Amino acid sequence: MHKLEETLGRIGLLDQEAMRAAKERQDRLTKPLGSLGRLEELSILVAGIQGTTRPDVSAKVIFTMAGDHGVVQEGVSGYPQEVTAQMVYNFLRGGAGINALARHVGARVVVVDMGVASDLESHPEIVVKKVGRGTGNLAQGPAMTREQAIRSIEAGIEVFQAELEKGLHIVGTGDMGIGNTTPSSSVVAAFTGLPVEAVTGRGTGIDDVRFAAKVRAIAQSLAVNCPDPKDPLDVLAKVGGFEIGGLAGVILAGAAHRVPVVIDGFISGAAALVATELEPRAKDFLIAGHVSVEPGHRAMLERMGLKPLLNLDMRLGEGTGAALAMGIVDAAVKVLNEMATFGAAGVSEALG
Amino acid sequence: MHKLEETLGRIGLLDQEAMRAAKERQDRLTKPLGSLGRLEELSILVAGIQGTTRPDVSAKVIFTMAGDHGVVQEGVSGYPQEVTAQMVYNFLRGGAGINALARHVGARVVVVDMGVASDLESHPEIVVKKVGRGTGNLAQGPAMTREQAIRSIEAGIEVFQAELEKGLHIVGTGDMGIGNTTPSSSVVAAFTGLPVEAVTGRGTGIDDVRFAAKVRAIAQSLAVNCPDPKDPLDVLAKVGGFEIGGLAGVILAGAAHRVPVVIDGFISGAAALVATELEPRAKDFLIAGHVSVEPGHRAMLERMGLKPLLNLDMRLGEGTGAALAMGIVDAAVKVLNEMATFGAAGVSEALG
Repeated sequence: MHKLEETLGRIGLLDQEAMRAAKERQDRLTKPLGSLGRLEELSILVAGIQGTTRPDVSAKVIFTMAGDHGVVQEGVSGYPQEVTAQMVYNFLRGGAGINALARHVGARVVVVDMGVASDLESHPEIVVKKVGRGTGNLAQGPAMTREQAIRSIEAGIEVFQAELEKGLHIVGTGDMGIGNTTPSSSVVAAFTGLPVEAVTGRGTGIDDVRFAAKVRAIAQSLAVNCPDPKDPLDVLAKVGGFEIGGLAGVILAGAAHRVPVVIDGFISGAAALVATELEPRAKDFLIAGHVSVEPGHRAMLERMGLKPLLNLDMRLGEGTGAALAMGIVDAAVKVLNEMATFGAAGVSEALG
Repeated sequence: MHKLEETLGRIGLLDQEAMRAAKERQDRLTKPLGSLGRLEELSILVAGIQGTTRPDVSAKVIFTMAGDHGVVQEGVSGYPQEVTAQMVYNFLRGGAGINALARHVGARVVVVDMGVASDLESHPEIVVKKVGRGTGNLAQGPAMTREQAIRSIEAGIEVFQAELEKGLHIVGTGDMGIGNTTPSSSVVAAFTGLPVEAVTGRGTGIDDVRFAAKVRAIAQSLAVNCPDPKDPLDVLAKVGGFEIGGLAGVILAGAAHRVPVVIDGFISGAAALVATELEPRAKDFLIAGHVSVEPGHRAMLERMGLKPLLNLDMRLGEGTGAALAMGIVDAAVKVLNEMATFGAAGVSEALG
């Protein structure tokens, strides 16, 4: 608990002076005022997060955290559970969607076993932080103990800190876990009180039978466990997942260390909810990468007051939306750092 | 006229067989069916444009075409006309928004003088295709002659073909011209018949006085010139601009040579309208990079049946939205080319 409390206590405010200076510079660059829209806003936000007028996002990391979910027993997913482990191997070989997109934006992918059901073959690049061999079935009881919830968040903080030492300017969150849209729906329903149907989607593309089972499992998870929305650790423990906890740790550590965190889609959104309900100040350090096809994702973003950068009908997870959006953030920072000012370029400013 | 007719005649259809094969490959990649949304669609479209299952968009060019506009006499812009030339020098020195964003996505910028009002200093990298020294004031008479309209389109075709010889897999369109949202509004109003107020915006950020003058100038341009919406060359000649014609040429040449064309914002949209009204088949080869803040832009995209990739509140022009979107297209193609299939990765497919 010490590591978590220390991290929460370290989360500060945006650097208003750096933001003011970055805004002032944006206004002197050779373009009409505000004409680069959200790119300008992003560059100013990153300046405020990093506390500098000349932000740097060159060292990029995507944390792709994997975990299994006991709720698959309820028939909520269209894929067998062993796919979680198979996809971890695919990540390590570089063949998954996140690998292609991380390479595209120049990010390294850090693959973390937060709680895959099976023991994975050892590999030099996998980070093992197994909190358990899959969660308990949340439709029948708690997904994990409160201690495991804390351990999963603290494991995320540790993984972040280890990468920070290697050099890291911006991070993205990503997930892998067969069945993990189910706990994510439970988490958003628990915090917002929205009806289960409003926050439940088709995940990987399930049929009507599995969809009905999924809605039932989510409703049951809330009825059986009564997660307390005022106690985010209780929500994570009762209806969350190990990778959701790990990502919440990455998010809190990013905020604590003033590193911008690009949030991926629905599962990462559940992690961001847990993190920001624990410490609302963390919101200032987050960039919503995209809006997922999952219907509960908008409700998450609204609750956190985040406006997504991209809307490309994606629903893969792994950090794919975060990686793409990271490229946009990089572009925004380059605009701030590389464009000429009116004075330097000898370009006339707007007429009075 | 020969070059234009030849180009129009060369525009064919998407390669359905390549698209089918690309779709079939997407469906075997290690992700749930359709879970990368618009990235999957884009990769399939580019396969159909290039006529191959393994598309390549590594050689990227942004054509940033500059021209001046006689209509600035009506007080429609907040910037003095000399800014067009000053910004051309800024492009050549690499200090403008398009330079930062083109470098970000690995595109080269080809700067073209289509009709800047002043004679520009010679520079090894500027392409001079001056059709005139600024257009005529379209609020008082035609912007240019029909011959000049044809010449501007053919100049765009020539510029494209010269770059094609150097190697080019995907192109983006960009513009620079003080006052050029005014002809763009006239063009969209002429083709769609929409009221002037519905397609007129604040351009670089003009005040109410200039906005009223702009609406008046656009309404007058239509009343004085009566452009014939069935005759796209008539519309371009009477209420267009030299850079709009040049970009229409780039777009038609891209379609003719089966090169995907990423369309920037409002001025590029006017060029795309001229091109697609001349040859509707050209639409299949276009990718709408983003939706601009300019209100008339949505009307253009709707008329062409194009759905923008990005919505980042941008309104700079120069090709900045096209450049950013080109990065997304590149990502889409990498997904198709680089991801592992279920079979190769040993990942189980969805349950029946």
